[in-house]
Amino acid sequence: MKKSNNITKSALSEKDGIIAPKSKDKSAIDKIKKKRRSKKSTDSLIEGIFKGDIVDLSRGITLIESGNPKHIKEARKIVKACLKNTTTSIRIGITGVPGAGKSTFIEAYGKYLTEKRKKVAVLAVDPSSSVSKGSILGDKTRMETLVRNPNVFIRPSASGINLGGVAQKTRETILLCEAAGFDTILIETVGVGQNETVVHSMVDFFLLLKIAGAGDELQGIKRGIIELADAIIINKADGENIKSAKLARVEFARALHFYPEMASGWNPKVLLTSALKNEGIMEVAELIQSYENHTKENGHFNRKRIQQNTNWFMQTIETRLRDEFMSRTEIKSELEHQISLIKKGETTAFDAAEKLFSK
Amino acid sequence: MKKSNNITKSALSEKDGIIAPKSKDKSAIDKIKKKRRSKKSTDSLIEGIFKGDIVDLSRGITLIESGNPKHIKEARKIVKACLKNTTTSIRIGITGVPGAGKSTFIEAYGKYLTEKRKKVAVLAVDPSSSVSKGSILGDKTRMETLVRNPNVFIRPSASGINLGGVAQKTRETILLCEAAGFDTILIETVGVGQNETVVHSMVDFFLLLKIAGAGDELQGIKRGIIELADAIIINKADGENIKSAKLARVEFARALHFYPEMASGWNPKVLLTSALKNEGIMEVAELIQSYENHTKENGHFNRKRIQQNTNWFMQTIETRLRDEFMSRTEIKSELEHQISLIKKGETTAFDAAEKLFSK
Repeated sequence: MKKSNNITKSALSEKDGIIAPKSKDKSAIDKIKKKRRSKKSTDSLIEGIFKGDIVDLSRGITLIESGNPKHIKEARKIVKACLKNTTTSIRIGITGVPGAGKSTFIEAYGKYLTEKRKKVAVLAVDPSSSVSKGSILGDKTRMETLVRNPNVFIRPSASGINLGGVAQKTRETILLCEAAGFDTILIETVGVGQNETVVHSMVDFFLLLKIAGAGDELQGIKRGIIELADAIIINKADGENIKSAKLARVEFARALHFYPEMASGWNPKVLLTSALKNEGIMEVAELIQSYENHTKENGHFNRKRIQQNTNWFMQTIETRLRDEFMSRTEIKSELEHQISLIKKGETTAFDAAEKLFSK
Repeated sequence: MKKSNNITKSALSEKDGIIAPKSKDKSAIDKIKKKRRSKKSTDSLIEGIFKGDIVDLSRGITLIESGNPKHIKEARKIVKACLKNTTTSIRIGITGVPGAGKSTFIEAYGKYLTEKRKKVAVLAVDPSSSVSKGSILGDKTRMETLVRNPNVFIRPSASGINLGGVAQKTRETILLCEAAGFDTILIETVGVGQNETVVHSMVDFFLLLKIAGAGDELQGIKRGIIELADAIIINKADGENIKSAKLARVEFARALHFYPEMASGWNPKVLLTSALKNEGIMEVAELIQSYENHTKENGHFNRKRIQQNTNWFMQTIETRLRDEFMSRTEIKSELEHQISLIKKGETTAFDAAEKLFSK
């Protein structure tokens, strides 16, 4: 904090060298000063992020999350600057139903990583967090050790906006964290709705956390998630659970055998962990490392990132076109009317669209 | 054909009763006549479709597939009329790699259905058909018996357009077939690209056809398809294949156990068939019937159709917005430029979109 303040001050006194007008209009002088200060502070914020200043990083993310047009403009400048400074990193998505032990797993895995001199950022994609309260990362005390670790940065999910908004903000937050020197980005999400698909679209490695149970392990997990997983971790494999966890491992490995090959040429693995007892964590870390080596060697790692960026671009365009179109008052009411006609089977999709466009 | 011609003639001589102008300008008279003829013929075409006239149905589909603006207008009128006449039907998607025996299966299944007094329409979604030639339905001789059956209507995939276009035209073709009294619509596709996802989005029941092999049954099948399947049929379960087919059945059933429950509350089943020897076909038919009963009872059947129609509507809007935006010359070149910047990591998706919209 102190460091960043220093930068701000020196930057303010040196740069541009505009001479204040001799006008007696104090408010005009204030305006110019304010303008200069805000401009400098964006630059110094970027500088601070590059230096790994956590406070500046947090402020940058707050700007990204803001809906204020001035902040949006500032945030865009910061994100663009950070893009250029992106370091080599790995982005890991972690999903699982509530109770699978995501926080405990991240606590153990994060600790392992920092011991290997890694810098870890923990983010969350959970648009419902503002509503459901007790959700992931809301309670930082669940990651006691990590919170106090200077090489770990934890940031809860942006709230009060829809999934698309959270996704965009998380993508930009990743770039800022990477610019700040974090080389391992963990993105946590609960396996509900479309969350995990969205997280999958922004990570290099996707990890599904499960618990061994009495055959109902899949309860609450949406169809399609298993096919996205680069690894399935059966957590809480300790005490009385060990036997069923081992059984589940065999069965999952068998089931995975029936899935077609992944584009990455990677064969998803099933591992056992007890995050609570700190068991199996090294194996997970080594597995992810071998994935990174494998996909960097065959070029998939980079190809996937480029593809993700291109998809994100196209998605941004489509979302914006749709939002601008739908926000028009005359379209809104017609849209509802046409949807009700469709539901009653009284018009075709094509005809309904035609009606909308004739407006 | 004859019947439909009769309708056209009588309609022409009776309806509207416009008196031809006494002008000596023959071309003006011709124009009016032509206009009347085309107007009447759309009405009579619709009438013919309702009566189950195969020739009128084919002509209607040809209009749907046409790119001619006049035809598009006519087609829209027909589709809208057919929407109102939609009967109770079941739409079944059938996918599988080339060689899985889709044509033979459809031949056997279609024969079984017509013996049960069903009227069967066989459509295809295969945008590549015009390129790859030897693809599905291109060779009708593979469905020898069905082709000659008066209660069966076979129509190859629309060609020369992209998947989105084929999807729209197939959806509209389904409506026409149903209006013409076909109660079982089979939609065939090869399990490549996005085809099967698109087919899945327009059917009530989705069937994956496989062959038992030496553990490489999944070759060529994309990840994600198995999760879409309401049933997996292991075909060619005859002769030397029987043992491996039975083994595959057990393994698949086990693998399916690991998939989360479907929204329909339906548990996907694995069945064996030998379409060539006409074995197991009745079991498939009964399975699909029990799916229909099950989902009609719990309301899923209707909910799914309404959801599909609503999705299709939103998709139509988005596609149109995107196409109109992208077709502008200044956007086209800027788009390419921004994509190349993204690929080089020199801009963010959001910033690139901003540049595009400022044009």
